[in-house]
Amino acid sequence: MRNWLLPEYIEDVLPAEALRIEILRRKLLDLFKVHGYQYVIPPMLEYMESLITGAGHDLDLATFKVVDQLTGRLMGVRADMTPQAARIDAHLLNHQGVTRLCYAGSVLRTKPDGLALTREPLQIGAELYGHAGIESDIEIQRLLIKALQAIGIDEIHLDFSHVNVFGSLIESSQIDAQLEQDLYAALQSKDQPAVAALTKALDHTTREALLHLTELNGDKSILAKAFQVLPATPAIKKALDSLQQVSHAIDQLGATVSFDLSELRGYHYHSGIVFAAYAKGYKGPLALGGRYDEVGQSFGRARPATGFSLDLRGVVSALPPAQSNMAIYAPVSADPALATKITSLRNEGRVVIEALDDADADLNELNCNQKLEHYNSGWHVVDVVRN
Amino acid sequence: MRNWLLPEYIEDVLPAEALRIEILRRKLLDLFKVHGYQYVIPPMLEYMESLITGAGHDLDLATFKVVDQLTGRLMGVRADMTPQAARIDAHLLNHQGVTRLCYAGSVLRTKPDGLALTREPLQIGAELYGHAGIESDIEIQRLLIKALQAIGIDEIHLDFSHVNVFGSLIESSQIDAQLEQDLYAALQSKDQPAVAALTKALDHTTREALLHLTELNGDKSILAKAFQVLPATPAIKKALDSLQQVSHAIDQLGATVSFDLSELRGYHYHSGIVFAAYAKGYKGPLALGGRYDEVGQSFGRARPATGFSLDLRGVVSALPPAQSNMAIYAPVSADPALATKITSLRNEGRVVIEALDDADADLNELNCNQKLEHYNSGWHVVDVVRN
Repeated sequence: MRNWLLPEYIEDVLPAEALRIEILRRKLLDLFKVHGYQYVIPPMLEYMESLITGAGHDLDLATFKVVDQLTGRLMGVRADMTPQAARIDAHLLNHQGVTRLCYAGSVLRTKPDGLALTREPLQIGAELYGHAGIESDIEIQRLLIKALQAIGIDEIHLDFSHVNVFGSLIESSQIDAQLEQDLYAALQSKDQPAVAALTKALDHTTREALLHLTELNGDKSILAKAFQVLPATPAIKKALDSLQQVSHAIDQLGATVSFDLSELRGYHYHSGIVFAAYAKGYKGPLALGGRYDEVGQSFGRARPATGFSLDLRGVVSALPPAQSNMAIYAPVSADPALATKITSLRNEGRVVIEALDDADADLNELNCNQKLEHYNSGWHVVDVVRN
Repeated sequence: MRNWLLPEYIEDVLPAEALRIEILRRKLLDLFKVHGYQYVIPPMLEYMESLITGAGHDLDLATFKVVDQLTGRLMGVRADMTPQAARIDAHLLNHQGVTRLCYAGSVLRTKPDGLALTREPLQIGAELYGHAGIESDIEIQRLLIKALQAIGIDEIHLDFSHVNVFGSLIESSQIDAQLEQDLYAALQSKDQPAVAALTKALDHTTREALLHLTELNGDKSILAKAFQVLPATPAIKKALDSLQQVSHAIDQLGATVSFDLSELRGYHYHSGIVFAAYAKGYKGPLALGGRYDEVGQSFGRARPATGFSLDLRGVVSALPPAQSNMAIYAPVSADPALATKITSLRNEGRVVIEALDDADADLNELNCNQKLEHYNSGWHVVDVVRN
C-alpha cells in the first residue's frame, strides 16, 4: 500500500490551480460583499439532525457520519452549506427583515457528484432570507450572472423550473407518497411512457398535465404553451407568471433563458422557482439555485429563502489555465540595501525568493525568470539568461 | 432536542468575525506568496495511513474516522495539514531543490485544543522543504514574525527548544521506549522529582543532564548555562549552536526570545529546532513550528522540512473588534442612472443594498447608515438621519 495515494474522487489542488481558485474565491466574495451579502463561516461538523433537517433523504446518504466522543451522539461532516446558512439566519442573526448571507468552504460527499465528479466540492454561495416576492428571486439570479461574468464565464444560460407546478398537481389529486416518488423519478428522466403507466388511475386533467410536463421544455415559447395545456389553477398560474417575470428580468442581462417544467432537482427541498446555470464549454450545470422557504421551519423559524451555490473546483477546471506566477531570485548578501529592495518589490506584489545559501539553486524549478544583481552601486532586477 | 444547537467546541463564525478572519487570511496568504510560498489545497479526507504516517499516536486519537463507501477502507478527516503538505512536496511536486508551500483550511479534532479551545481550528501555515541548514529555520521564523506583525500583533515573543538535546541523551544511553515516554511526560511538566526517580538506574552524566533540562528555561543566558551543564557531545553542541544562531537572527527583528530545553511539543514528529510564538494579550501560543525532516520519509521520499502554522480563529478572538462595515441603501427605481450609480459605488468597494420592494426596510438591521436619494437631477449618497 502506498501511503501517498488518495481515496478515489479526492484530489489535492496544486499551486497553479490553487492560485486560480483563490483568485476566483476572492472575486466572488468581494462581489457578494458589495451587494450586501455578509460572509459567514458555518462549521464542518454538526449533529445529524441539524445538518439534514428539511433537506431530505439524499443529503442523509451523501453525509459522512462520525461519533461525537464527548457525547456519543451522531454528527455529520457537512455535505451542503445551504441548510447551515438557513440555520444561522433563523437563529443566530434573528433579523425580522431581509438578511443576505454568503459562504465558501469545502463540503464532503460519500459519493462523487457535480461538475467536477468529486467528493469534496468547494462550495461557494449566496442566500437571501426574509423576502417571499419575485424580486428576491431576481436579485439572486442577477447576482449569479454577475458572479459567473466576474470569473470570466461568457454565454451564460439559465434553465428555470418551478416545483409548485408538479407539487400542486400532486396535492390537488391527493397522490400518495409512493406514487409521488415514482412520478418524480419518471419526470426527471422525461419518461413519458412511464408517466402514462403511472397515471392511469388519475383524473383526466391531472394525467394530461403530468404527461405534458415531460414535453414542456425549451425556450420562452414553452411558457405560452404551458399556460394553454396546464390546468389554470391559482397555484399553477402563479408559478407560470413568476417564471415569465424572471424571464423578462434575465433577458436584460445578456444571459439566455430556457424552461424545463419537469426538472425537479431538489424538489423535496425547494418551494418555488429553481434554476441551473450553464455556459459554453461546460458539460454540466455550473451553479444551482432556487427558493426554499420551508427549510428554516425545521429550525423553528420559517423564513422565505432563495439562493444559489456553485463548486469552485468544477468551475475552475474548465477555465483556461492561469498565467504562471514568475518570481525574482535574490542572492545571499548582508547588504541592507538588498533587504530594502526586496521589501519594496514584495510591497508591489512581486514574488521574491531569497537564496538560503550560496549553493546554486535551480531557477527553473523555483519559477524564477529574473534575479537581483548588484551594479552601479545599487540592486537591480535583471532577466535570467537561459542556456 | 433543538435542531439548531451545535456540538460542544464547534462554532459558527458570524459576519463581523468572519469578515475579520477573511481579511487576515488574505493578508497572510499574500505575504506568503510574495515570499515565494505557493498555495496548495490538500483534501479534507485521506486514508488514515497517509494522514497520520510519521506524525505519531496523538494525531491518530485526534482524527475523526469515516469508512470509504467505495472501498470499505478507513479514512480520516484531517486534523493537521502539515503532513499533507509534506506528502505533496514528496510526491506531487517532486522537486530536487527547495520547495515553499502554504495552505489555509479547516481541520477537525475529536477533542478541543489550542488557543481557541475548539474542535475546528482554521489552520494556516507555511512550510519549506529541501533545505537542512539553519538558514531555512531562520527564514521560517522571520516569516512567522512578519505574519504576526501583518495581522496587527505586537510584542511578539518566540520560545525555542531543540528536540535533539533530549533525543540524543535517550539515544546515547539506549533508554527503552517506555522509559523514554515516561521521561518525556515528566519533562513536559518540568517535574524534577519524577525525573530523579525515573533516572536512578541511568549513568551519572545522562541523569544529571536530564535533571538539568527541567531547569534550562529562560532568557538567552540559559544557552550559556546549557553549554556548561550538558554533556558536550557533537549532537548537543550542534543543537545549542543552532539555537544561538536563531537567537541572533531573531534579535534583529524586534521579537524577544527565550529558551525551554525541556519543551518537547511534537517530539515524535519534529527533528530539530522547535518554537512557539507568544504575544501580549494572548494566553497561549499563537503559532507553533519547527523542523520535521523525517516526515517525508513515510511517503517514501525523505526531505528536510521546517515550517509553522497557526489557528486563525484563535488569533482573531484576541484581536480588537473590526469596524462594522456600513452599507448604502438604494430605493426601488427603474431609472438607469440609479443602476449606473450603484455599479460605480460597488466598483469602489462600497456595499450597496438594493431595496426589494417599496416596503420600509429596517436600515439599522441592514447596517445602512447612508442611502441613495435623487435630487438636482442626479443620485447622491446621503446620511440616514436616525430618530
